[in-house]
Amino acid sequence: MQQNPNAAKSQPQQKNAQQKNPQQKNPQQQQKQPAKRGRPRKQKLEPVKVTFLGGLNEVGKNLTVYEFRGDRIVVDCGLAFPDAETPGIDLIIPDFTWLEQNAGSIKGIVITHGHEDHIGGLPFLLRRVNVPVYSAKLTLGLIRGKLKEHRLLEKTRLIEIRPGDTIPLGCFLVEAIHVNHSIPDAFALAITCEAGTVIQTGDFKIDTTPIDGEMIDMARLSRYGKKGVLALLSDSTNAERPGYTMSERKVGESFETLFQKASNRRLLVATFSSNVHRVQQIIDAASHTGRKVALIGRSMENVVSVGMELGYLRVPEGIMIPIDMIHRYAPDQLVIITTGSQGEPMSALTRMAFSDHRKVEIGPQDCVIISATPIPGNEKTVGKVVNELLKLGAEVVYEKMYDVHVSGHACQEELKIMLGVTRPRYFIPVHGEQKHLVKHAQLAQGMGLDPNNIMIADNGIQLELTQDEMKVAEPVPAGSVYVDGYGVGDVGSAVLRDRRHLSQEGMIVVAVCVSRETGQVVSGPEILSKGFVYVKESGDLLEEAREAALRVIEETPARSRRDWNTLRGKLRDEVSRLMYERTRRSPLVLPVVMEG
Amino acid sequence: MQQNPNAAKSQPQQKNAQQKNPQQKNPQQQQKQPAKRGRPRKQKLEPVKVTFLGGLNEVGKNLTVYEFRGDRIVVDCGLAFPDAETPGIDLIIPDFTWLEQNAGSIKGIVITHGHEDHIGGLPFLLRRVNVPVYSAKLTLGLIRGKLKEHRLLEKTRLIEIRPGDTIPLGCFLVEAIHVNHSIPDAFALAITCEAGTVIQTGDFKIDTTPIDGEMIDMARLSRYGKKGVLALLSDSTNAERPGYTMSERKVGESFETLFQKASNRRLLVATFSSNVHRVQQIIDAASHTGRKVALIGRSMENVVSVGMELGYLRVPEGIMIPIDMIHRYAPDQLVIITTGSQGEPMSALTRMAFSDHRKVEIGPQDCVIISATPIPGNEKTVGKVVNELLKLGAEVVYEKMYDVHVSGHACQEELKIMLGVTRPRYFIPVHGEQKHLVKHAQLAQGMGLDPNNIMIADNGIQLELTQDEMKVAEPVPAGSVYVDGYGVGDVGSAVLRDRRHLSQEGMIVVAVCVSRETGQVVSGPEILSKGFVYVKESGDLLEEAREAALRVIEETPARSRRDWNTLRGKLRDEVSRLMYERTRRSPLVLPVVMEG
Repeated sequence: MQQNPNAAKSQPQQKNAQQKNPQQKNPQQQQKQPAKRGRPRKQKLEPVKVTFLGGLNEVGKNLTVYEFRGDRIVVDCGLAFPDAETPGIDLIIPDFTWLEQNAGSIKGIVITHGHEDHIGGLPFLLRRVNVPVYSAKLTLGLIRGKLKEHRLLEKTRLIEIRPGDTIPLGCFLVEAIHVNHSIPDAFALAITCEAGTVIQTGDFKIDTTPIDGEMIDMARLSRYGKKGVLALLSDSTNAERPGYTMSERKVGESFETLFQKASNRRLLVATFSSNVHRVQQIIDAASHTGRKVALIGRSMENVVSVGMELGYLRVPEGIMIPIDMIHRYAPDQLVIITTGSQGEPMSALTRMAFSDHRKVEIGPQDCVIISATPIPGNEKTVGKVVNELLKLGAEVVYEKMYDVHVSGHACQEELKIMLGVTRPRYFIPVHGEQKHLVKHAQLAQGMGLDPNNIMIADNGIQLELTQDEMKVAEPVPAGSVYVDGYGVGDVGSAVLRDRRHLSQEGMIVVAVCVSRETGQVVSGPEILSKGFVYVKESGDLLEEAREAALRVIEETPARSRRDWNTLRGKLRDEVSRLMYERTRRSPLVLPVVMEG
Repeated sequence: MQQNPNAAKSQPQQKNAQQKNPQQKNPQQQQKQPAKRGRPRKQKLEPVKVTFLGGLNEVGKNLTVYEFRGDRIVVDCGLAFPDAETPGIDLIIPDFTWLEQNAGSIKGIVITHGHEDHIGGLPFLLRRVNVPVYSAKLTLGLIRGKLKEHRLLEKTRLIEIRPGDTIPLGCFLVEAIHVNHSIPDAFALAITCEAGTVIQTGDFKIDTTPIDGEMIDMARLSRYGKKGVLALLSDSTNAERPGYTMSERKVGESFETLFQKASNRRLLVATFSSNVHRVQQIIDAASHTGRKVALIGRSMENVVSVGMELGYLRVPEGIMIPIDMIHRYAPDQLVIITTGSQGEPMSALTRMAFSDHRKVEIGPQDCVIISATPIPGNEKTVGKVVNELLKLGAEVVYEKMYDVHVSGHACQEELKIMLGVTRPRYFIPVHGEQKHLVKHAQLAQGMGLDPNNIMIADNGIQLELTQDEMKVAEPVPAGSVYVDGYGVGDVGSAVLRDRRHLSQEGMIVVAVCVSRETGQVVSGPEILSKGFVYVKESGDLLEEAREAALRVIEETPARSRRDWNTLRGKLRDEVSRLMYERTRRSPLVLPVVMEG
């Protein structure tokens, strides 16, 4: 398989490996079409360009751009969630610079499904580029809520499409193909232009017994496969997992069993609010066991209300009760559906676990079912929530104890079916970290795809695809833009570096007031610290810092004291040095020199 | 099972559950000995006290204290590693206050094995309480290195014991019993006094084909079981995992296969340095495939040198080469053993993955085997290292791809064998978070143990055990002491709160110099920020903050301006308010008011 050239730049071995075949032009094809090789072509084939602004080498902020003869379409516009490397950040969106520069050419944005990593960046893009958005009913319902919050609803054209619909967008035809996923109304897209058809799967799995009755539309995908697919961009999330992903229906069976077993206990089920089918199955099991259902968590209330309004949730009359009414029912008459399945610090479940929720108190009468798997990075926070719930005496069903969760993404055998059915000329694994992309590429290679026709790309990469070749064109600007409060892009790597430094070592302010005329110390130096030492017990240490600062000033000739920059530098160096010597810590030292 | 009373205090439901049986005195036993009930006892039975200073509701800093007739012994003295809640902290040790207060009564410290969570706190305890330390040869070898670093080696008596040895410590007899674990020389302890025998398993698994040839000494454990065990304290780490832990030998077989398959590639194997048996198997596989072995990582070099010196590693003549010599060998002649299997940021493997290691450059000629499972919380860092290694073109064997790792801890069936063989009157699951302890307690209950004889305890809890009853006595001070650089205990929860705040929102210094006499502003206000906004692009915002500060001062009557505390408070409030209004962020605002 080919590796993206950006990665190669910093990696000499990779580069060498590529340089061996600098113009490697798909040897398999060369063999297949020997007759054509001699004939002069009428004209060079025009390529379709595929550009990635997000979703490669990460799980999150999916955004792919297709371009042919100057027309562009955007597929998905997601966000990514922050981690330990991005402290204090609220969310991460793609860099839209390149799209903004080419705003005029964008014919529309097509959204595959309503998860945050596919729709979360939309308001930020629409603020800058006003183009119509095409997607399914539920997805648009969720997008509508977002645009309302951002006051963009009035300005934006939202156009509903259904599975099987084909919409013309500039010189493209885009067909929406029904797939199974952990949210209803998920699409794969068949994107056709004169250069050929590209299939982008979106997030998918193959569920032969889905909750909404519709299996992924293998017929349409096969049909494209027969006609000829130029390229397949396929979901790599579970490329490391062998076998098949279980059907969502399996979870419903577990709920029925657990709800029966719980007998006189109150049930709480935590899950992703967007998993409407999961919520449906909880409501069904509640209905079968004669329990009322209450909701906790803003996003749960929001999605359920959208889901009910648009007809995606069938809720028996009278089963839903407001959370304030739960006191009126015995534990065995209740199911509470809550957010917080990832142990998010501010979520309803976490607050309940730490006895910090105004409306629900957890105790030995409760059985809490965590109907989700921790997303990598959340294992520890979820573990803490489980521990706290157990300390309160509750029974807790978590992880693999029962089949209370299934993934929304295809495992290896399903991925191979997708490859086998669409039979693409080129394969570009998407939606995953490097390890997922590599594993997915290996699966394709194992099925006989020519390694030269498989590309592990990266954000910023532009690929040019024709029947003859897959070429890497000039990269475009792509990266992460941080959203923090109202700020979009005002926090960058320097600010984050400071935050990480502050979090590890704390800081010291050295403030001194020096006379403008004489250069004499008028007042100070004062030492203040935060996050460094417990001030009340470290008076001596801070006094030492003060004396060192004073010494620095005194040792500076009076006339050069008015060179504030030099004096600041000296103060910083000396106080840093002394603190490190005394404590083996390196607080951020911030000198403030004022004219008195 | 019983829950610890500390937990109950904050949890009304739990308390109620316990209050139902306030003096619950082991009903099973009452049934078994009906004849005795009528007879007056000569004297009240004297209890053995078991006190936990660490290791409960956490994985780390194991420390248990036994007390009988005024004599005390300490079992293990570990450390815990910091996490996202404790930024900047180097390590966490138990609170030794109570031990220090009772130093005179401590007859010795017995260490079960040489892992950091069992020995890492020793130097800090020995600094304050000088008592002899008893353990096996390898464990003492590792402890010796630590004490040398802390300049405590001369002052400390280290006494070697072997499996089967029984040592008298005050009125206790302590027998060391061989167990299997992921480090050689691990002991269970049988601690006998007149009140009975308590078995503390230490960390263990049942390995029927261990590398050092010795299976766990089931005979001794059974013998105690037959004579009567008062209480069992058993390792709960893997209590959630069904079945059995595989033998360490299985990993050796995987190495042999992978080393053969690697043919012309260089091999790098990352593992825990303390897993001497793992290192032995890597060396064996290297030897069988004609490869030289080089080591990277300080702790790896240290443990291998101790292991070789004390005869725990059999290293064929001439197989080891210094890392600087690797250039002289072809890739297929080399195995590099390295630290960093947990993706630790400063470890050798992480630096290699990010092309930041001086001596080893990773490329397509390499096969990297990560012979470890991520410890909860490390999944994401390990994933990043795998991604980077793949980007460099290396083959990477990780997670469950082959059997390149087995746990050192017993799974459910092994835990049940331990319970079945020792047949304790009381059972106290230790070494685990709440979810592990609860699961372990449930296993015991499933085997027929009376729930009232099972105690889920907590750090700080003192249990009094006699044949008649298990009682919770007054708790003792226990908690976490943070070590940060040279500082032990000078960073507490307030400093950590500031660090977390700084890491999320950054900070702003508002400095102003006010005349002592007139109360007029002499200089400033100056605004400095770190980790808040990108200063160069946020000049307007910071200028607004400056103007707000100035307004605060101007609106304060001149005579009250010299009340620095009030002025500081006003500056903090107003600048905080304004910044939140403008940015929806809450940086830590630090006002500095100086006399000019």
